[in-house]
Amino acid sequence: MKYLIQKFGGTSLGDDEKRRKVASIVIGAKHNGFLPVVVVSAIGRSGDPYATDTLLSYAREHKKEPTPREADLLMSCGEIISGVIMSTTLQKSGCPAVFLTGAQAGIITDGTYNNARILKVDPRHIIRHCREGKVVVVAGFQGVSEAGEITTLGRGGSDTTAAALGVALGAVSVDIYTDVDGIMTADPRIVTDARPLETVTYNEICQLAREGAKVIHPRAVEIAMQKGIPLRIKCTFSEAPGTLVTSQDEINKGAIDITRDRTITGITHIPDITRIKINTGEAANIPAFQGRIFNALALAGISVDFINVHPEVVYFTVKNADAGKAVKILENMEIKPEVLPDCAKVAAVGAGMTGVPGVMARIVDALAEEKVLILQSADSYTTIWVLVKKEDMEKSIRALHRRFDPCR
Amino acid sequence: MKYLIQKFGGTSLGDDEKRRKVASIVIGAKHNGFLPVVVVSAIGRSGDPYATDTLLSYAREHKKEPTPREADLLMSCGEIISGVIMSTTLQKSGCPAVFLTGAQAGIITDGTYNNARILKVDPRHIIRHCREGKVVVVAGFQGVSEAGEITTLGRGGSDTTAAALGVALGAVSVDIYTDVDGIMTADPRIVTDARPLETVTYNEICQLAREGAKVIHPRAVEIAMQKGIPLRIKCTFSEAPGTLVTSQDEINKGAIDITRDRTITGITHIPDITRIKINTGEAANIPAFQGRIFNALALAGISVDFINVHPEVVYFTVKNADAGKAVKILENMEIKPEVLPDCAKVAAVGAGMTGVPGVMARIVDALAEEKVLILQSADSYTTIWVLVKKEDMEKSIRALHRRFDPCR
Repeated sequence: MKYLIQKFGGTSLGDDEKRRKVASIVIGAKHNGFLPVVVVSAIGRSGDPYATDTLLSYAREHKKEPTPREADLLMSCGEIISGVIMSTTLQKSGCPAVFLTGAQAGIITDGTYNNARILKVDPRHIIRHCREGKVVVVAGFQGVSEAGEITTLGRGGSDTTAAALGVALGAVSVDIYTDVDGIMTADPRIVTDARPLETVTYNEICQLAREGAKVIHPRAVEIAMQKGIPLRIKCTFSEAPGTLVTSQDEINKGAIDITRDRTITGITHIPDITRIKINTGEAANIPAFQGRIFNALALAGISVDFINVHPEVVYFTVKNADAGKAVKILENMEIKPEVLPDCAKVAAVGAGMTGVPGVMARIVDALAEEKVLILQSADSYTTIWVLVKKEDMEKSIRALHRRFDPCR
Repeated sequence: MKYLIQKFGGTSLGDDEKRRKVASIVIGAKHNGFLPVVVVSAIGRSGDPYATDTLLSYAREHKKEPTPREADLLMSCGEIISGVIMSTTLQKSGCPAVFLTGAQAGIITDGTYNNARILKVDPRHIIRHCREGKVVVVAGFQGVSEAGEITTLGRGGSDTTAAALGVALGAVSVDIYTDVDGIMTADPRIVTDARPLETVTYNEICQLAREGAKVIHPRAVEIAMQKGIPLRIKCTFSEAPGTLVTSQDEINKGAIDITRDRTITGITHIPDITRIKINTGEAANIPAFQGRIFNALALAGISVDFINVHPEVVYFTVKNADAGKAVKILENMEIKPEVLPDCAKVAAVGAGMTGVPGVMARIVDALAEEKVLILQSADSYTTIWVLVKKEDMEKSIRALHRRFDPCR
């Protein structure tokens, strides 16, 4: 039984023409001898694949924030709606199909509302329907706890559903359909000659996704990686081959030692962040003062990033949206932070840079040529990050893409 | 055929008593139905598993540095000597044994002297000898290019040989024998209650090794990971179970989504580094000036680490041993660096810290309690690094170990 998981995001399901295109992809896979299991996200507003905000706004209109339990019940409707529409579209196209909620599909999670983890998958119902010749459409992003409560899986939840089903069914592939031609070497809206990557490793894609490449959620990748199920990132609306995500071993068949040909896999960016700088050199007890700063922010649940601690000064970034709250907390501690809003984090990502000398020099140099001022930098074995002003973001991405020419 | 690779470092082979202990381990494995293939490092001075320095010093006594080709020929003798001694010890213990050089064992590398990569393994000779009932002892750290030149594999070379043989023979395990009880949560000479980790993932051990944990080389881990061959880090001289290195999947059998229970896997350290600070705020063209600094250092082959670039100031670290050269290069550019020798990089490593809020706050706080001044910090998804003065290194390690209590 060659199961094939096909996951479609909200942007692929937005109108009837798009859904007929999706149906033709699914029916094509069936004709090629696969047993397609289709995972759907909620039909989103453009750019928002999980339009859960819309559903939540219904509740908020009544001036009452739903409890986490009720929010999950509400949000789970998004995928039920798109799933029912999709299975109906398949039936109308002459393809027997059945829709299953996450619970009906056997997605068993822990009891953490809004961010549940899949504990196991019981694929009995899916298998039975597939054997009866039906295409099974499964609601992504949702599951059921062992106590019978409906849960949702948090960010990237439909990808996670698809990967978990792929593992449970031993699928030949988990195909993630989206509106781009695969994993790109940089954002094609910024870099005109950005190219889709033909193959990437599970580790590379996790790293790219964490740094802002939006194509797939790292959690889904980790699940697929555990059992070595290949992922393919494909475009619903083009014939492009897409990007194959697999293990280094599969990419590098035959060779014993890993030889990496590309230093950099891609250039990613995260815009809309605020840099906060605090002078700490005058404090009576510098370490204790610094400890209080980070504890206060952690206690308030503010996610801080790009932290550089020095004796005389502490730098970190927060999302633009969190900046006001962070500043207020600091001012309550009688600290006067220097606030630089509208920065962007640009990252050069690639497992191949490990141990390659001079990568940082090439980055500083490429940005200097464009007269870009680096506000902060950091590096690990697989990533070099720079913080730049928002107005420098696009030219920074282009300069790094040009310098490293990431390719397959 | 259950092949078992057993790799012994130089500290396990230093005298006849130790070698008899090694022989008893090998013979024990044979009695348990395994086909042991033994990989040996050169017999080292204490603390130096690859005592290649000694061999090179023979050549240097004649005031002549050997060519890279000849240095490899010379260095390859270290493992030939220890391998012949070890196979003789096995024979004296009544166990049929044969010694093979890297070339005889079929370790085919590229032609990069001193740092060759294994391209493939042709295990025919090993298999034939094993079938004849012999224990095969293989010289680690060396191979032969397709042109027939003897090459060595660079740092961690014997681990790499062991892992590559494990893959080529489909071994049940690659056992790395050393003088510690496994992979420790911190250096037991510094943290008295440091514990061996029972299991770690391939990714975790790579990260620990890069941050200074000396037990196994990341390249060997990457090779084993490609084919899912388990590694075991064990002590030659104790009955401790050691550490099993395997995939998250194996550790987490049955669960679909990965649930990580430990935030921090271990605390590592790299001593003897020098921090260099350069004020760049006065330069006419700051980005260009910064570019020149890093290019000059890269050109001189100086490995820089822990780079923090800001508009007004650039920080980075070099090994203490490289500091003089780095300063000279900078002074030739009419730059006056501020030099802080004898620093140490302490890292908290753990895949489980990804997405856990407040980890940095806990680190700053734990160090503040010990009145440790953080000279610099950096963080990635799996590691938080702090730079401290050498005299603060041990109490920093202890404070972080106490705070996070890494466990299995």
